[in-house]
Order: sequence, then structure tokens, then C-alpha cells
Amino acid sequence: MDKPLSTESYKGVRDFYPDDMAVQEYILAVWAETAESFGFERYDASVLEPAELYKSKGAVNEELVNEQTYTFTDRGEREVTLRPEMTPTVARMVAKRSKELSFPLRWYSIPNLFRYERAQKGRLREHWQLNCDTFGSDAPAVDVEIITMASQILLNFGADPSTFEIRINDRREMRTLYDSLGITDEVVQAKITRLNDRIKKMSESEYLEELAELTSTKTAETTYNLISGKDPNDRNDVVDQLRVLGLKNCILDRSIARGFDYYTGTVFEIFDTSGENNRSLLGGGRYDNLTTLFGGDPISGIGFGMGDVTMKDFLETHNLLTADFPGSDIVIIPENDNQHILSQQIAQELRANELSVSVDFGTQKTDKRLKRAVDRFVHYALVLDDSTIQKKSYTLKDLSGGENINGTIEEIISKLN
Amino acid sequence: MDKPLSTESYKGVRDFYPDDMAVQEYILAVWAETAESFGFERYDASVLEPAELYKSKGAVNEELVNEQTYTFTDRGEREVTLRPEMTPTVARMVAKRSKELSFPLRWYSIPNLFRYERAQKGRLREHWQLNCDTFGSDAPAVDVEIITMASQILLNFGADPSTFEIRINDRREMRTLYDSLGITDEVVQAKITRLNDRIKKMSESEYLEELAELTSTKTAETTYNLISGKDPNDRNDVVDQLRVLGLKNCILDRSIARGFDYYTGTVFEIFDTSGENNRSLLGGGRYDNLTTLFGGDPISGIGFGMGDVTMKDFLETHNLLTADFPGSDIVIIPENDNQHILSQQIAQELRANELSVSVDFGTQKTDKRLKRAVDRFVHYALVLDDSTIQKKSYTLKDLSGGENINGTIEEIISKLN
Repeated sequence: MDKPLSTESYKGVRDFYPDDMAVQEYILAVWAETAESFGFERYDASVLEPAELYKSKGAVNEELVNEQTYTFTDRGEREVTLRPEMTPTVARMVAKRSKELSFPLRWYSIPNLFRYERAQKGRLREHWQLNCDTFGSDAPAVDVEIITMASQILLNFGADPSTFEIRINDRREMRTLYDSLGITDEVVQAKITRLNDRIKKMSESEYLEELAELTSTKTAETTYNLISGKDPNDRNDVVDQLRVLGLKNCILDRSIARGFDYYTGTVFEIFDTSGENNRSLLGGGRYDNLTTLFGGDPISGIGFGMGDVTMKDFLETHNLLTADFPGSDIVIIPENDNQHILSQQIAQELRANELSVSVDFGTQKTDKRLKRAVDRFVHYALVLDDSTIQKKSYTLKDLSGGENINGTIEEIISKLN
Repeated sequence: MDKPLSTESYKGVRDFYPDDMAVQEYILAVWAETAESFGFERYDASVLEPAELYKSKGAVNEELVNEQTYTFTDRGEREVTLRPEMTPTVARMVAKRSKELSFPLRWYSIPNLFRYERAQKGRLREHWQLNCDTFGSDAPAVDVEIITMASQILLNFGADPSTFEIRINDRREMRTLYDSLGITDEVVQAKITRLNDRIKKMSESEYLEELAELTSTKTAETTYNLISGKDPNDRNDVVDQLRVLGLKNCILDRSIARGFDYYTGTVFEIFDTSGENNRSLLGGGRYDNLTTLFGGDPISGIGFGMGDVTMKDFLETHNLLTADFPGSDIVIIPENDNQHILSQQIAQELRANELSVSVDFGTQKTDKRLKRAVDRFVHYALVLDDSTIQKKSYTLKDLSGGENINGTIEEIISKLN
């Protein structure tokens, strides 16, 4: 016989057994419900995209494209990439129908995304990400709205506002600041933006050294003071409006940069305040021109992305994944094979009344099958034996310790409703 | 400037704009709800699998592996395949935890699957498929249950039982039949099974000719009569039990073979009776040993798969996709920019009462914004102007022609509940 096949998944991806899947579905459901409560509409596309979508001159992230994408040639000699992020896809879709779509659009999606990363803890090669964007409006109210929604997602998981912090900055305001410091070269400004993106991972002296190379020692110090300090007179409209809406965990943080070059206005990130999870939970920003690569008119917008892995870490850190994930409403346990058809008839009748019902056709003893039902969080068990069948009077045993329900199937249904 | 990037998706896959996505989500939701109403638990895995999973000696479908998979080498020199079907993945997952899992398992998944097909109508390279399996039980009741569930899915879409037909066969019974005809060579039996799988695409003479080559002219004729005719004395337990459960659209069809070699008992397919859609809506069967490739004990089971594209064709043919897909409950339309914050405060209050609310921050005239809301199936509109704000008395305009609701926000909320 051949050597047995390995039961391992491909490296860096996850198998979702039913218990894992219940958690995953819960996270995705809260994301979707919150987005829909703000009037966002769901879209999706294939994980397969033409490789050129990520290779164009204006492409966002060269390192990503060159070193971290899954790109291969198909059997028809086309170059294909497994989407590493959703923004190019949604820009392509919006550009394609820009004449028909009615702006502003509020769109969300929950794609799985792929990056070839060296395997290490927390660095997966496939993850799911909530992507939300509002296209076609420059109103600052749209910035306020989408950040409110990002915050509401965490609140809807049961998070206390003190457990997370929303840090906001504005690239336009930063440009004005650099101009006032005499840093007018756009290339230098872009380099400083990328440097600021790493500021929390650097010591003060490292930062000052790198910045001084780009500007001068004096400018570096002034910039550092502005960025690391908290000037009480420094203001930002979006932050002010969010405070009016009651989001007290919102702060203006001039070091927030976001790595992506396409952001042109408001940028924001949400961080766990516990100190347990260093990576941002969520990040986003405003852009002017995502669709111009496709040759149409520029369409502005603001969006964010939030990953399932960091989300789950946050929920575990703050003990927000304690809910039971309920199994079926009822399990029917027939004691003999000749009760199998009757079991299925009763199950059909109960299901027709919106109940989820499984039949345990196992051959183990009733006690063992009851224990399995308890393990799977089933609410009620209905054990079929010859005497109950003859009397047509059944007992729905409450497996969570509540009161049992007795009667004919019709009576049981009416008592459950 | 560079040539604009194409807005086309990769060939043979679909973009899901919000309208398409609403249909797709509806189909996937009915699948999931029906499976859960039978006590099935959801699982999933990555689309990326080690290529060897599909290449082993016992692998199911050589043509598929050699000519139709997406297989490539990753940056770490591992051979990876985009899953073309779910069965090898679920067999791998079950084998991996066979010692811990509590059988029988009822598992379902809705994976996207990939096949490199020459582009032609209805032949997509990526599709979604409902996969349902019960593992670890040989009870015929389990066959009856899973076929009942397959039928219930169509009923839950609103399909009339007369619009589809469930065709059932049993490979064990076919083996007995071939034995009785003197066809005892297993290789020849397997070839006949694969021939029967194509019988509906062949003329009688083509079938007889191919079968005669495998057996003899006389045996071919006897076999053809048995397979194409409807012997009133021919019986099958699963069909009989399904009839008892009220599934009158169930028939015993000795030509049903299912292409896959791993089926060993009951096999079944569901067909559209309208004649509009020739391919089966759904197919499945019983197997003995899906997990032995992984070196563990054999685990038997029964399962089926059903694709989104054929499902949608069926629903369209029978006019079952006519439901409206509702948009938000309420759109708030502020007439001036200085009402944006108030709009968001009102939206927050309404959302806290389980209502989905969008704010139209657009700059167009109110009429145009109302029309957009109607187009997006929004139920109510709340237009904010200075006089309503001053009076704190608002009007919720019913966009579907029903009665408007007036009052303060609190009054409106209590009237809506």
C-alpha cells in the first residue's frame, strides 16, 4: 500500500471545524449586520484576478506584488493573482459601471485575501477581511459616518469603549504642516509619511536620525515634537464631530500615517488599549482617485479594512467570545431501527414549525446519545420508545436543566411557540 | 500616460455587484438554513490545498486532476491546488480528528470550487457548491434523511414538488444485477457504471454498441431493457421509505450511475422536470472508505453536492426569484450640510432600535435623492429641513405607498415597533 496521505492543510491556512466555524460565522455576521444597519450593500468578486491589476505603475504596494502575491500562469497562458487585498478589485468594479451606478455608494465585502508570508505566529497566508467603502462623496460627514460605523462594529461585539482607541489624522493637514516647516518636496513628504507609519516601532533617536537625513536636524526635532506630543490647540473637524456624536475614545494622533500611498485626506486606525495586541484592529482612509487607473473620471471615497485574525484576538483578550453557540433545537433519539421512519416524520412536522431538528440514528445506548446532544448544545431531546409511541404522548427533555414539555407533537409545538 | 487597465474580471469568474450579491446571498442562506434545520453543522477550509491531495492513487477523477485543476508551485516550492471539489478536503479533516469526533457527524459547507474549463456558456471556472455529508453511519435511515433534506432545500425555495424529480439507484443492487447476468469482472462492472452515467446523452444504438463491446450483444440488450425500462416489480428500500415520508417525486432509476468511483451504495440525482435544464441540480451517494487514503480506519457516509449556477437557473426557470430584496429600513435626507451631524445622531438613535439606516449626504435635490431611495428598495425616508428640526416633529415617508408616520423620533420608534 502507498504511504498514507497527510491530513495537514496547506501551510499557513486554516481548517474550520464546526466549533471554529461557529466563531468565524459569528464574527462575519456581526460585521455584515453592522454594515447593513448603516445602509451598506454587499458585493464580492472572485479570488482570481488578472495579475496586471496589481502590477500597474500606480499600484499600491510594490513589495507586496513582487514578493508576497500568489501569482501563477493558467493553462491558457494568462497570468493570474490570488487577490492580496480588495481595493484594486472594488476600484475595477466601480470604474466598470461608473456611468450606471448611483453615487454615493456604500459598499462592503468580506473577501478572503492571500499573501505568501514566511510561516510565523499570527501571520497567515489566507485571512478574511471586512472592507467598507463610501464612493463618490467628499462630505466630511461621510468620514464621520464610516468611523462611527467602525466603532459600532466593536460595540456590537460587546466591547466597552475604554478597550479601544480610534486614532485619526489628516494627510492634507500634514502637508500644510510640512509646507510650514519648509518641507515642500512631495517625494520627501511621502518618505516622511512612510517613516511616521513606523514611528511606534522605533526609538526616538532612530526616528530623529532617519528624519534628519530627509530634512535637517532642526526640522527633525520640531517635527518629532509635533508628532509625538499632544498639542491641546491642535484640532481636526472629523475628531470634533465624532466627539459630538459621543465617541469619547477618539483622538487626534499626528503620527498616524497608514502605509498606503493612495490616501489623500483623513486616515484612521483603531487600537486595542489593553496592550495585548500591538497591530491595529482596523485601518482606513480617504482617497481621491482610485479609479483613474482604469481611464475613467476620478472617484473619491473613504474606506477601511479589518481582519478576522486581529478581530478574534481582540475578542479573546477582552473575553467577548464567551457566548454559547447553540446547536439544534431538538434531537430525536429513536431506541430501535424500526422507529427511524417515525422519527423522520416527527422531525418533518417539527421543522415545518421553524424548529431545527436532528435525528440521532446512532446505535449507542440512549444515555450516550443524550450526552452527545448536551455536548453539541442541543436544547431538547425527544427519546422514542415503544410505550411513548403507543400512547402518542412524548416528552421533550430540556437538556439545559429547564422544565420538560409533555404532550402530543401538536401540543408540544403549541407549547414551544 | 499608460494605457488604462482593463475593468474586466479574470475570464470565467463572476463579479457580484450588490444586486447579484443579493441573489447569491439568498441562495446560500436558504442552503444554510435548511441544512441547519436538519442539525447539520457548518465547516470550511481554505481554497488552497496541497496538490498531492488530488493526485494519490485512489484519487477520484484523473481527467479533472490532469487537465482541469488550477495547480501551481508556491514561492517555497510547494505544489498547491485550488480545490476543484470539497470531498478530498472533508475526508482529510475527518480523518485528522477521527479519534476525537463524535460520530455520526452531520456536516455541511458552501465552498467555492475551481476548474479550468474552456470558457463557454454556463461553464464557469469558479462556482459555489453546497456540500452535505453524514459520516459514520450505515443506517439506511441516514440515506432517507439526506435525500429528504435535498428535496426540502428546493421546497424551501418555494419549488413545487412537480417541478423536480429525485432519481435514485443503488450500486450494491446493480452489482447483484450484473452478477446475475454473468458480468462478474469488477473492472467491467465499473466501465458499465461509467457508461450508464452517459446513457441520457447517447442514442439507444450507441449505448448498445459500447455495452456489447464490454459484454456481448445479448447481455447488452438485456441490460438496456432493465436500465431504460421501468420494471414495476423492481424495488428499493430507500425509495419506498421516501414515499412513506410523502416524497412522491422520487423514482427508482437504474440508469443513475454518478461518475465518481467512490460511491458504493445508494446514488441519487435531482432533475428539473421542465426540460429547460439538462444537467442535474444535485447529485450524491453513499461511500465506504473516503478516509482510508489517510491511513485511518474506514469511515462510511453519504453526501451530496449542489451548485449555485444550476440552482439559480432552476429558480429562474420556475420564476422563484421574484422576491424583492429589501434595502435599508430608513434613509435620512438632510437638506443642508449643517444638518449632517443631527442626521447622524438621529441615525444612531434609530439603529439602536434595530433599524437599518443610511444617511444620504449627496448634494442633489431632495426629489432626486428620494428617487434613488425608491430604486434601492428603501422603506422609509426622513427628510430633514430647518422647520421640522425646529419643531422636533418629523415625517417618515413610506416610499412603497403606505401610510406616513409622524412624530418625534421617540414616537416614530414606538410606532414602528
